[in-house]
Amino acid sequence: MAASKKMNVNPDLAKERSKATFDVEQLTYALYLGKERTERKRYLEDLAVNDPVIKECKPWAFCSREEQYEMALKKHIHIAKQIKLLGFTDEWDQYFYTEAAACHENSPIGLHSSMFLPTLRKQASEDQKKKFLPLAENMTIIGTYAQTELGHGTFIRGLETTATYDSKTQEFILHSPSLTSMKYWPGNLGKTVNFCIIMAQLYTKGKCHGIHTFLLPLRNLQTHQSLPGIELGDIGPKFGYGTNDNGYLRLNNVRIPRDYMLMRYSKVLEDGTYVKPPNSRLSYGSMTLIRAAIVGDSSRGLAQACTISIRYSAVRRQTEVYPGGPEAQIMDYQTQQYKLFPLLATAYAFHFTAQMVYGIYLQVTSQIEEGNLDQIGELHALSAGLKAFTSWECSLGIEVCRMACGGHGYSHASGLPKIYVDLTPGCTYEGENTVMMLQTARYLMKCFAKVENGEKLPGFVSYLNTDLSAKSCMKSDVALDCLVQAYEHRAARLVQVAARNIKRLVVEEGQSQQQAWNNTAQQLVWASRAHCHTYVVKAFVAMVTESNLDDQVLNVLTSLCKLYAVHGVMEHLGEFIQDGYLSTSQVEAVTGKLMALMKEIRHNAVALVDAFDYPDALLSSCLGRYDGNVYQALYDYAKSSPLNQKDVS
Amino acid sequence: MAASKKMNVNPDLAKERSKATFDVEQLTYALYLGKERTERKRYLEDLAVNDPVIKECKPWAFCSREEQYEMALKKHIHIAKQIKLLGFTDEWDQYFYTEAAACHENSPIGLHSSMFLPTLRKQASEDQKKKFLPLAENMTIIGTYAQTELGHGTFIRGLETTATYDSKTQEFILHSPSLTSMKYWPGNLGKTVNFCIIMAQLYTKGKCHGIHTFLLPLRNLQTHQSLPGIELGDIGPKFGYGTNDNGYLRLNNVRIPRDYMLMRYSKVLEDGTYVKPPNSRLSYGSMTLIRAAIVGDSSRGLAQACTISIRYSAVRRQTEVYPGGPEAQIMDYQTQQYKLFPLLATAYAFHFTAQMVYGIYLQVTSQIEEGNLDQIGELHALSAGLKAFTSWECSLGIEVCRMACGGHGYSHASGLPKIYVDLTPGCTYEGENTVMMLQTARYLMKCFAKVENGEKLPGFVSYLNTDLSAKSCMKSDVALDCLVQAYEHRAARLVQVAARNIKRLVVEEGQSQQQAWNNTAQQLVWASRAHCHTYVVKAFVAMVTESNLDDQVLNVLTSLCKLYAVHGVMEHLGEFIQDGYLSTSQVEAVTGKLMALMKEIRHNAVALVDAFDYPDALLSSCLGRYDGNVYQALYDYAKSSPLNQKDVS
Repeated sequence: MAASKKMNVNPDLAKERSKATFDVEQLTYALYLGKERTERKRYLEDLAVNDPVIKECKPWAFCSREEQYEMALKKHIHIAKQIKLLGFTDEWDQYFYTEAAACHENSPIGLHSSMFLPTLRKQASEDQKKKFLPLAENMTIIGTYAQTELGHGTFIRGLETTATYDSKTQEFILHSPSLTSMKYWPGNLGKTVNFCIIMAQLYTKGKCHGIHTFLLPLRNLQTHQSLPGIELGDIGPKFGYGTNDNGYLRLNNVRIPRDYMLMRYSKVLEDGTYVKPPNSRLSYGSMTLIRAAIVGDSSRGLAQACTISIRYSAVRRQTEVYPGGPEAQIMDYQTQQYKLFPLLATAYAFHFTAQMVYGIYLQVTSQIEEGNLDQIGELHALSAGLKAFTSWECSLGIEVCRMACGGHGYSHASGLPKIYVDLTPGCTYEGENTVMMLQTARYLMKCFAKVENGEKLPGFVSYLNTDLSAKSCMKSDVALDCLVQAYEHRAARLVQVAARNIKRLVVEEGQSQQQAWNNTAQQLVWASRAHCHTYVVKAFVAMVTESNLDDQVLNVLTSLCKLYAVHGVMEHLGEFIQDGYLSTSQVEAVTGKLMALMKEIRHNAVALVDAFDYPDALLSSCLGRYDGNVYQALYDYAKSSPLNQKDVS
Repeated sequence: MAASKKMNVNPDLAKERSKATFDVEQLTYALYLGKERTERKRYLEDLAVNDPVIKECKPWAFCSREEQYEMALKKHIHIAKQIKLLGFTDEWDQYFYTEAAACHENSPIGLHSSMFLPTLRKQASEDQKKKFLPLAENMTIIGTYAQTELGHGTFIRGLETTATYDSKTQEFILHSPSLTSMKYWPGNLGKTVNFCIIMAQLYTKGKCHGIHTFLLPLRNLQTHQSLPGIELGDIGPKFGYGTNDNGYLRLNNVRIPRDYMLMRYSKVLEDGTYVKPPNSRLSYGSMTLIRAAIVGDSSRGLAQACTISIRYSAVRRQTEVYPGGPEAQIMDYQTQQYKLFPLLATAYAFHFTAQMVYGIYLQVTSQIEEGNLDQIGELHALSAGLKAFTSWECSLGIEVCRMACGGHGYSHASGLPKIYVDLTPGCTYEGENTVMMLQTARYLMKCFAKVENGEKLPGFVSYLNTDLSAKSCMKSDVALDCLVQAYEHRAARLVQVAARNIKRLVVEEGQSQQQAWNNTAQQLVWASRAHCHTYVVKAFVAMVTESNLDDQVLNVLTSLCKLYAVHGVMEHLGEFIQDGYLSTSQVEAVTGKLMALMKEIRHNAVALVDAFDYPDALLSSCLGRYDGNVYQALYDYAKSSPLNQKDVS
């Protein structure tokens, strides 16, 4: 960004920057864990966006689906080669380099490194690793992870693909026994990969042992032609992900050797004897990591959308504020502030939450390595709920950002639709959000049962011991601790309401536990949402109360933190006041504070998005440019539209 | 639909239909104003979807942008020809025929009939009509309506394009004086049209007279080449609307004859003398019609999305309800019901609202023709607010429907993304939604001032006279009249809160009226939203209490109506209870009723979407098919993906 600051900047935007009350660099360092890491990030981003191969790629929006796929394949193979060539072994190095080079163009080889390799490393036996890892690491074998089927998604036990052991030949026979059992959706499966890890119901000696993982060759390693018994292809155009050949795969009794089953934990012996894994919860680890990563992805997507819409709101002018006066910057309208500033606060809140959850993940993983599985359930509940909570909020929020840019937000020139279609699948993949919320609710119900037994709960759920008859301490200053207490009260109350409703249905109406659960499911989702919301508020509060930032940065982050919490109270007001926890005058104080906080944020809004430090090339947005020259950029975008190659079409 | 009922239907879906408690045909007749009109609609739809030219068009999702445009141009020219050939002069005939033929593929010649011709008919003088209408009607002249500029949208007075009268040559000089003055976004402008109606600031005798409308030739009528001084083209790829060449237009001192200014109301005489229009509010009419039409479009888009997601939810099975049991239809999950059934109720609510608003439009228009302008303000406020309220709700709702279909919703095979990108621009065009809400708020503030003066208000706003100290009459049966009163109370209270806040800021804090307005803007939006919400609830209640439907239909519609109202209370609970209007136990009764209503709707859900009576071809959805054979359809869709033309790409 340093170089770009010398550019010719739109005067409205320059003025915004001059009004900031804090040093943007200091906040950027806080976001990216220090000056050194920030500089490293910038170095990697510069390298990526100035790479001649990346730069010469035709703009994504001007490509047909087929061109998008080919262009992305070329780009991502180049990225993979560069990462190797430049020796980027650190995962953050790889992340920042790839993000800036790819700009929300989903990778046609991404599943290889995000799912195929890690699964191989975690679930293959030592012998298998020796055999397959070198081939996978040098990309002779390119793989994906084939789990989802045409008729089966989040409920993994329902998968239909079979792997039947034939002890005569010491092979597994992989088969799709029905239309709905066909693999459908796995990324990169259609055209790109030549191998996959496939989930299938294991049958041996006539008995089903449930879902296991197998290595399956799909295409000839030389000719890339699909192998006999294997029918596969791309699933067709989607809302986004045009660059990704999400695929389908139908298997007609395909035989693979016995040692193509991943055997680190479960085993099938030569004679077909099945050997159980020592602990069935060991596979939780990678699932929780991916879900924790979605929290981070969501926060970054929302932060990018905020950057675009807030910069544009400083440049765009509309409607005289008084007759005959100049048209105002649209960011001066309270309604525009109400759309964007809470989302800006949300992006910050989720950023800190993602960092915190990742820290917990590392801690729990190291416990697991030492054989301590105590916190697996807690981590699972946390990552499931937060994945759902944040991906929903970001999905909604990005669209609010888009519409806050008026008509121009609808053009691909804005970059916003691309961010949306890239992020919104996060609500569905790696566990559908409602199912995730209910998994968190299940944990909360277990915890609440302990509360009813008089136990004191530790950690994230200790607030469930709260005395629900207490009233809020909220005063006109709207203090952070009173806000935290309000969130805890709301969540604890909703957990109690849901638990009691289940009990009532079972005891008074004679419903089964399952029926009662389903008939309380929406209330359980509300309870989970309130729990996750509380966690995020507390993560943000911890950041502003426990870190040693400079005072100016701390002041503005504290305002943002309050805005996040206060806005959440207003948007879910019923849940906070239904039992009289907040009085009418306390609600009025919160409303007043909300409006006051937007004024406080107003003069720092542009600086706050600048601090996210996204290069223009990553945003790929005519509206979100650092220099604010949006109208010239829109005109240039229009002129380059392929439809304009001839005056008369 | 009659013929399709004989097809091989998925057994789950067939069972759903057998469970319905009402005659679907009767409800369809109620929706489309009788049996005769319903049959006419079906006749037109059949004709459209079985037309060989329409049928042979390549599926939209498999086309590049350029192919999309060309295909749509061919299709829509064919539609226009057929409408003429078949003699469809009735606007509903044209609507249903076109909707079924076009299936959310935006028309590259649509602005000609929706904006160019009506404006010509309304604003041209009799001489101008004689000269231009025949050419426009036989499509020698194809036009659009060029209003929006690169830097100027909803605030029309801010437009920069100039039309300067030169009395020497008796011409207007049309000019784009700046980058931001370039026309940008008008539909069909880029490549298709050869004429436009253009809005520009009229200057004559050195004085600006504000925005006026002019006819501007853009392209040679023979060669279609753009004319000298005119730079125009397509604005490039967008989120959707790939079939529409939304365009840009830059003018370099282009001269047009004096009689190319539309002169029915305002005039410029030969010597440059400006003659004012008799009444500046006369142009309100067409604006309100278009906004009322958006209410209808929104309801239809949402109804289509509900049809797809509810049928799919009956076919899709996921997760055992009890261990070892069969996987349940996802529609049996309360959380799925909570996503979809309130939206189903919303689609019905908006359908009846759209019909009611259209009726009011016709009534007010005939008053205007008789010179009575009394109700213009009221109609304007109503159509502005409802346009915003319904387009926002539908935009959000369609995405909820999409995500409720899990991963498959993300594929273009679902048809859902196309409906979304076709409908969501309705939040922005014809008046940005927040601006619309504030226009309605302005009307509400005027009305409230009258209330404070002790006046009794008539019509839609009479509820503002409500005594706000009264408590709710809500009992455990959750009666419709108590629900209506609750909505009226909430809206009246929020109007009062906003009005008093403005007053306080002016009187106590010394702010100008404009400052106080802006500092209350979000509260004004809340008040407007509550007002519109109340109007919709009352429109639905009127439908179920005043119409003479058969009892079974009436029963199910009454449940839907209650669900709409009860769900709205829960989603905006804070606004209903902040002042203690509903007690804690009343809120519990409403919550209980909400859950009970979902069970009531459950067994009629498929029948309720069937009643919307959308042909499969219009839905263009593998998931929403009448026969429920979704998995085969998805597989066929995948196989036909252009990326699969070769095994090895």
